[in-house]
Amino acid sequence: MARLNDHYLKLAAGYLFPEIGRRMDVFTTANPKADVIKLGIGDVVLPLASSVRDAMHRAIDEMATTEGFRGYGPSEGYDFLRAAIAENDFGSRGVRIDPNEIYVSDGSKCDSANIQEIFAEDATLAVSDPVYPVYVDTNVMAGRTGDPDEQGRYAGIQYLPCTEETGFLPALPNEPADLVYLCSPNNPTGTVAPRAELQKWVDWARANDSIILFDAAYERFISEDVPHSIYEIEGARECAIEFRSFSKTAGFTGVRCAYIVVPEELEGKGSSGESVPVSGLWSRRTNTKFNGVSYPVQRGAEAIYSEEGRKEVQANIDYYMTNANLILEGLGKAGFSTFGGVNAPYVWLKTPDGLDSWQFFDELLEKTNVVGTPGSGFGACGEGYFRLSAFGIREKVEEAIARITKSFG
Amino acid sequence: MARLNDHYLKLAAGYLFPEIGRRMDVFTTANPKADVIKLGIGDVVLPLASSVRDAMHRAIDEMATTEGFRGYGPSEGYDFLRAAIAENDFGSRGVRIDPNEIYVSDGSKCDSANIQEIFAEDATLAVSDPVYPVYVDTNVMAGRTGDPDEQGRYAGIQYLPCTEETGFLPALPNEPADLVYLCSPNNPTGTVAPRAELQKWVDWARANDSIILFDAAYERFISEDVPHSIYEIEGARECAIEFRSFSKTAGFTGVRCAYIVVPEELEGKGSSGESVPVSGLWSRRTNTKFNGVSYPVQRGAEAIYSEEGRKEVQANIDYYMTNANLILEGLGKAGFSTFGGVNAPYVWLKTPDGLDSWQFFDELLEKTNVVGTPGSGFGACGEGYFRLSAFGIREKVEEAIARITKSFG
Repeated sequence: MARLNDHYLKLAAGYLFPEIGRRMDVFTTANPKADVIKLGIGDVVLPLASSVRDAMHRAIDEMATTEGFRGYGPSEGYDFLRAAIAENDFGSRGVRIDPNEIYVSDGSKCDSANIQEIFAEDATLAVSDPVYPVYVDTNVMAGRTGDPDEQGRYAGIQYLPCTEETGFLPALPNEPADLVYLCSPNNPTGTVAPRAELQKWVDWARANDSIILFDAAYERFISEDVPHSIYEIEGARECAIEFRSFSKTAGFTGVRCAYIVVPEELEGKGSSGESVPVSGLWSRRTNTKFNGVSYPVQRGAEAIYSEEGRKEVQANIDYYMTNANLILEGLGKAGFSTFGGVNAPYVWLKTPDGLDSWQFFDELLEKTNVVGTPGSGFGACGEGYFRLSAFGIREKVEEAIARITKSFG
Repeated sequence: MARLNDHYLKLAAGYLFPEIGRRMDVFTTANPKADVIKLGIGDVVLPLASSVRDAMHRAIDEMATTEGFRGYGPSEGYDFLRAAIAENDFGSRGVRIDPNEIYVSDGSKCDSANIQEIFAEDATLAVSDPVYPVYVDTNVMAGRTGDPDEQGRYAGIQYLPCTEETGFLPALPNEPADLVYLCSPNNPTGTVAPRAELQKWVDWARANDSIILFDAAYERFISEDVPHSIYEIEGARECAIEFRSFSKTAGFTGVRCAYIVVPEELEGKGSSGESVPVSGLWSRRTNTKFNGVSYPVQRGAEAIYSEEGRKEVQANIDYYMTNANLILEGLGKAGFSTFGGVNAPYVWLKTPDGLDSWQFFDELLEKTNVVGTPGSGFGACGEGYFRLSAFGIREKVEEAIARITKSFG
């Protein structure tokens, strides 16, 4: 039989969210009348903004005419969208990003999964713990790690513990690493890295020839005065790639659009030690393995930068952050230790009574019919913690808090 | 500096189609008034079918309501689309494919690029030559080859010459290979493999523990009585993965939808020799690196199986195949040796006067302002050949033929 990529077989269990779905299915099959409230997977619930809807309609009508039809677009994304992103997401904050440095994709999951391909097979890694599991899993699949230990930590990765003691911020690695994955605002802890912290990372990366893979998918939820982009930090253009997403910002989880920024100055080295622009490799990957994002979707994404779109996006974000605030308050009153929820749509809580994360998942589901996400699914340091998402319809969120307070308060 | 994936640096030149675009840009900048006719990149031109347009509109309106909003869908695709595909593309031909064996994606380029990831790092390869360049390029990027020779052939790949002598069909490899890439109807030669030929491949793959990666993106253009799917062949479920696309079939090059079939019976082996279902790895990849296709796009794809959609799709295919026929006839009269164009939207022609493929590209562009695709871009055996695509507006195709006849006839 054809030989398979054995590294896949190292992956401990199913990808986190399908596993949650599976346990939820088991529960609802056994309890068909239960009114389950989902605050687990982090999926948005508010309807698509009318500005996005209208822009997509127009694009589709355009494509249904001979003159307006569009076939293959540029793999990197249409200029109209790249220009809108450069101006609105960066220029408006005084950050210089050229439209050509922006690569539009069908999702941040894809981008954060695919980026590792352009680095050496034996590139070394440092990863915040806990964090979005895709960073680690895709490097396992690519063979950059050994087997996992009992806590699910793979040999060969430097894990950077983010605990209550560190304020849920990662400390600098002990050893150099080719790649460092940072996520701020952090998924799942909801913690955001302040400016001085980011400057420390940029300085470290430049001194250690590292590249920071900076996931800012949740930057629009920042309410305090901290950087939204790693490029607000001096020197970041020489050492960082940034990931952004329309998923949570503009309700695009089902529409699919995101982008990454690869600055022109960013270089890596080939095996003979020569400097090579990283953008050349990413551009090659994009052109060889991808054919661009659906045209109507790109028009929809562009629309969020219109005056109307901007208002609608902000209203949705305010709505979700009001949820976050309610969850924070409610859980606090019920006696939980809570974190995050101020600059991110996630509330991170300590599980009560020494329960481990999956035990609390099961107990919460059983007692309150509320679905959350076990912290251990995001890394060993997430054990004993639990994530609740603020992406819910207000009434459901309130009902969830009431049930949790009744059962645990 | 962070260490990069050196294998990328082996890639000889830019990906074929961007290189064509580049030369075209140079020409049009120098000749701004030239009326360039593009029969190169193989991109469709007819407007989106009204059934697709209407279905996408409905899906978008649905998403703009609280009740109808859809966030993350299943990474493998929605059941409604998988079921429609299983029934219409396979069941109707007497082929048993379960909806769960279908994985919906945003394009065949992505699928045929990504599939190699689930196989061993040192998996051996056999590839038809000439063929769609993505198969080879993505394996080069993954480090499964050595450097290219002067003809652009990478060390470590078994190339299967498809020449006039072989009827443009590949002969069986001399050595076993874990993976064999076949494309039928073939891009670029337009040749289709008859049933006996496919049976020979399936028998060989089963005898040699190989997996056939069967690209059937152009199956809807088949006019003669030959299989549309590898699964019409006895035993193929045990040894083949099939790629299908809506791009050319339904004008989806800018809308983005495709799928692959991974049968349940298909197994590969891990490094300790154990049998592992291939679907498990592909499913894991899909869930870890992909978040599903845009919901309105999936509804658009579903619509091509409606009564109206079916008619519209067929009308477009007939239109393009009439173009193919006109090109075949016209070039024949002008004295060219031509192939393909009967079961595929591509006409494959021998370059005149001993010109190499890129010389003919430049000469054709210069003399007639027609853009085609150099055969050598598809592999060493494509040298001295040239591809013309039938995807054009009728008047443009007729004009192109007239110009070619005038200049070369």
